[in-house]
Amino acid sequence: MEIPVSVIAGLLKAEVKGDPNTIVSGFGGINEAKPGDITFLNVEKYVPSLMTTKAAAVLVRASLKIPENCPPALIIVPDPQLALQELLSQIAPPKVEFAPGVHPTAIVAPSAVLGKNVSVQPYAVIEEGATIGDNCVIGAFCYVGHFTEIGNDSFLYPHVTIRERIKIGERVTIHPGTVIGADGFGYLEINGRREKVPQIGNVSIGDDVEIGANTCIDRARLDTTIVKRGAKIDNLVQVAHNCEIGEDSVLCGCSAMSGSTKIGNRVILAGQAGLNGHISICDDVIIGGQCGVTKDINNPGFYIGSPATPHITYKKRESVVVKLPQILKELHDLEKEVAALKEELAKEKEKK
Amino acid sequence: MEIPVSVIAGLLKAEVKGDPNTIVSGFGGINEAKPGDITFLNVEKYVPSLMTTKAAAVLVRASLKIPENCPPALIIVPDPQLALQELLSQIAPPKVEFAPGVHPTAIVAPSAVLGKNVSVQPYAVIEEGATIGDNCVIGAFCYVGHFTEIGNDSFLYPHVTIRERIKIGERVTIHPGTVIGADGFGYLEINGRREKVPQIGNVSIGDDVEIGANTCIDRARLDTTIVKRGAKIDNLVQVAHNCEIGEDSVLCGCSAMSGSTKIGNRVILAGQAGLNGHISICDDVIIGGQCGVTKDINNPGFYIGSPATPHITYKKRESVVVKLPQILKELHDLEKEVAALKEELAKEKEKK
Amino acid sequence: MEIPVSVIAGLLKAEVKGDPNTIVSGFGGINEAKPGDITFLNVEKYVPSLMTTKAAAVLVRASLKIPENCPPALIIVPDPQLALQELLSQIAPPKVEFAPGVHPTAIVAPSAVLGKNVSVQPYAVIEEGATIGDNCVIGAFCYVGHFTEIGNDSFLYPHVTIRERIKIGERVTIHPGTVIGADGFGYLEINGRREKVPQIGNVSIGDDVEIGANTCIDRARLDTTIVKRGAKIDNLVQVAHNCEIGEDSVLCGCSAMSGSTKIGNRVILAGQAGLNGHISICDDVIIGGQCGVTKDINNPGFYIGSPATPHITYKKRESVVVKLPQILKELHDLEKEVAALKEELAKEKEKK
Repeated sequence: MEIPVSVIAGLLKAEVKGDPNTIVSGFGGINEAKPGDITFLNVEKYVPSLMTTKAAAVLVRASLKIPENCPPALIIVPDPQLALQELLSQIAPPKVEFAPGVHPTAIVAPSAVLGKNVSVQPYAVIEEGATIGDNCVIGAFCYVGHFTEIGNDSFLYPHVTIRERIKIGERVTIHPGTVIGADGFGYLEINGRREKVPQIGNVSIGDDVEIGANTCIDRARLDTTIVKRGAKIDNLVQVAHNCEIGEDSVLCGCSAMSGSTKIGNRVILAGQAGLNGHISICDDVIIGGQCGVTKDINNPGFYIGSPATPHITYKKRESVVVKLPQILKELHDLEKEVAALKEELAKEKEKK
Repeated sequence: MEIPVSVIAGLLKAEVKGDPNTIVSGFGGINEAKPGDITFLNVEKYVPSLMTTKAAAVLVRASLKIPENCPPALIIVPDPQLALQELLSQIAPPKVEFAPGVHPTAIVAPSAVLGKNVSVQPYAVIEEGATIGDNCVIGAFCYVGHFTEIGNDSFLYPHVTIRERIKIGERVTIHPGTVIGADGFGYLEINGRREKVPQIGNVSIGDDVEIGANTCIDRARLDTTIVKRGAKIDNLVQVAHNCEIGEDSVLCGCSAMSGSTKIGNRVILAGQAGLNGHISICDDVIIGGQCGVTKDINNPGFYIGSPATPHITYKKRESVVVKLPQILKELHDLEKEVAALKEELAKEKEKK
Repeated sequence: MEIPVSVIAGLLKAEVKGDPNTIVSGFGGINEAKPGDITFLNVEKYVPSLMTTKAAAVLVRASLKIPENCPPALIIVPDPQLALQELLSQIAPPKVEFAPGVHPTAIVAPSAVLGKNVSVQPYAVIEEGATIGDNCVIGAFCYVGHFTEIGNDSFLYPHVTIRERIKIGERVTIHPGTVIGADGFGYLEINGRREKVPQIGNVSIGDDVEIGANTCIDRARLDTTIVKRGAKIDNLVQVAHNCEIGEDSVLCGCSAMSGSTKIGNRVILAGQAGLNGHISICDDVIIGGQCGVTKDINNPGFYIGSPATPHITYKKRESVVVKLPQILKELHDLEKEVAALKEELAKEKEKK
């Protein structure tokens, strides 16, 4: 996409300050934007970011007082977020809609309860006692297990499997191939063999959670694996039995939580990060890519490495690691110098 | 779940030694149990563990001689394992049952052979020449390929794909979304492009194997990818072509084996561990989380790090790594000291 | 498989030079072959490899001049590649064929267009406006979204999900459970919560691409996630929104690319390698297993470690890391020696 600011302003019927020929080719948050991005400025707090953002253009709330001569082109609108949604809806291809109604090939158990305006797509299977809230879309080939409850306005893409007795909140989106409520991975060693520990718990997914494709969230042994409101989980993520994920936390692609581990609110696990079992991470922690967390983390901050280490400590240590061949040479040089000194001193003593 | 020992004893009609008001909230093996867990004691060998276990309560075999005053509450039963199963079945919600019979929407090829009491759920597809043993459950949307054989009492959850000519043993459980027998990943470079190497082998899964959700076990190029009796494989695990997994081995979530690698019996791969191709690991090895194994391992033990290193060696080395900034300072201090000494000695020599 | 060279020669009606009783049990490229492998020699450039290959037997192009007494048995054929394919087709079990035609349970939207000889297997769903090229196989339970286009001779195994407006090239193979075109993972933080960034772009997969099982390739935010001609992607791989993968590149199992990252042509990502977002890697780079790439790579070569480091540099550094406990001891010994020297020198000075 390459679209001039003048065209965007035209679509939004908005005034421009700055160069209307600026080309927009993407978007991002005001502090993360890359050159060419459009972003938006909603609240006074971020006004200073206008001078530092790399964004090419900013949708600015008309009520804000803004400095002169800020680098990006500004598009003045009453509500920047609404404007962004409107802009995208105008440039987006028409959205695929799934009309309400149960496709004749879907199999909905007689005791299942569907809310208003539910769309059940071809070959979906909804088992006995399941409850689907209003306005939900149950995609093709989805499997909704016995007594599972899905809240209003939730959307299951094709090939989602949700086993029995799971609770899914409202406005939850689940992408294709994801499995919720498979058995936790637990065995007891008995006479050298592994006997399965029954996994009789369940899973609870809060409101406004989004879960990517081919992700797995296992049911608890006895209790409940919990994903709280607003958490966002990417593709190919492993959430083991009895885990707990706090509100607004983010689990990036291929990250993994072992059994019974808990993370607080607003925690971010970057890609391929891994967490040991039975540990807990407090609110507002960022775990870097491929980081391996082996112990509790009780202080907010940014942790990297395997095992996880505060970012500054790790960087300091790594700055020495990269110099190790040089350091070893220094040590050996020094050893030679000391040997020479020793010899010299011995000679001095002999002289006398 | 929070349940007093007295209630458990009541359910099992068993005698209690110790505090009947002890609350049980989970379970685990006698040496791994956490506070609040119930565990069990089956054989004499583990009697000393009664004094050290963290478990809150123990189901003890009545025939064992046990010490006085061991910390957990004891529930005396004829067969502790049976008692545990019974206990769980009493506190568990009713199990979802899939009645024998072929759902009218399932497509079973005329030449496929189904054993007794097989349940074929909606929209399952069973191809020509496939054989399904007695008492199997083939979940909704499962695909069982041509000439594939599944042993008695096996259970496929929804959306499992098993391609052609695969052998699955008895009492095998496969969780949703798992793919068995996809082509191995092999190409020959010819004139700068990669030409596919035909993958004409198959996969053999032994008895009592359990395989988690969204896991992949590829078919061999020519021979057989082998998973032996009793192996347990978690979610999102990658087992490449021609791998071999020994008996009772355990592959935790997101672990990965590259092509033609073999692991022995009772090997454990912790989460996100990765094994190079064409290597072999002997019996009774534990590979830690995120560990990367690049070479054969011929000695039992616990290995961590990337590349994999015996645990003790790695810990010793890491204890120095964390001190590197301090060590570098020491080295530089020493360099200064040596320089000062040198100067001093030179002065001494001059004096004479 | 264990097959004597004489039998292979018989199948191919070819002449043997060397021991016809040599046993062949696998195959590989001429420089990567293991003992027991058969390989092939197509062009003059690789003739010297005949003396060094570990292969047991080589299919050699008749027109090449070859040295005397090379170790492997040689099978002389007009076209070694064709011979290899023929050999495999002769020893392979009969291939599973999916006859052209639309299975009566498949749901093909009226506006979808199917080419000649297309096979649509049971329970496949093809949505409005989709286009399927000639000779394609659409496996059981596949979902082909609205307006998605699939080129000629492509093959979708069961349970593949391709969402709307995706372009798939010719001769593309996609293994079971893979998801193409799920939403990219992007949120804006607004008032402490994460608001979804609409993902209105798409995905373009080039000709001759192969994609393994349970892999995810997300759609772009606005533009196109691109996988170019001839790229090969293994199982459980994560390709995030707006990524670009060059021609003939190889992504091994469990590797992962974060959003907006680009890799050039003939790049190899080994197993579990991970790439940060918004970086780019030039042509002809090999990224080792579990390697974490945090910055652009602008020079071809082999990189390992996390963060990614040129192979030689990393090995050199690691050779010091493994000696750290010894080095620390040396440093402390030296400190003692210096202290002793200092004392000695002081005594010397006192003497005078």
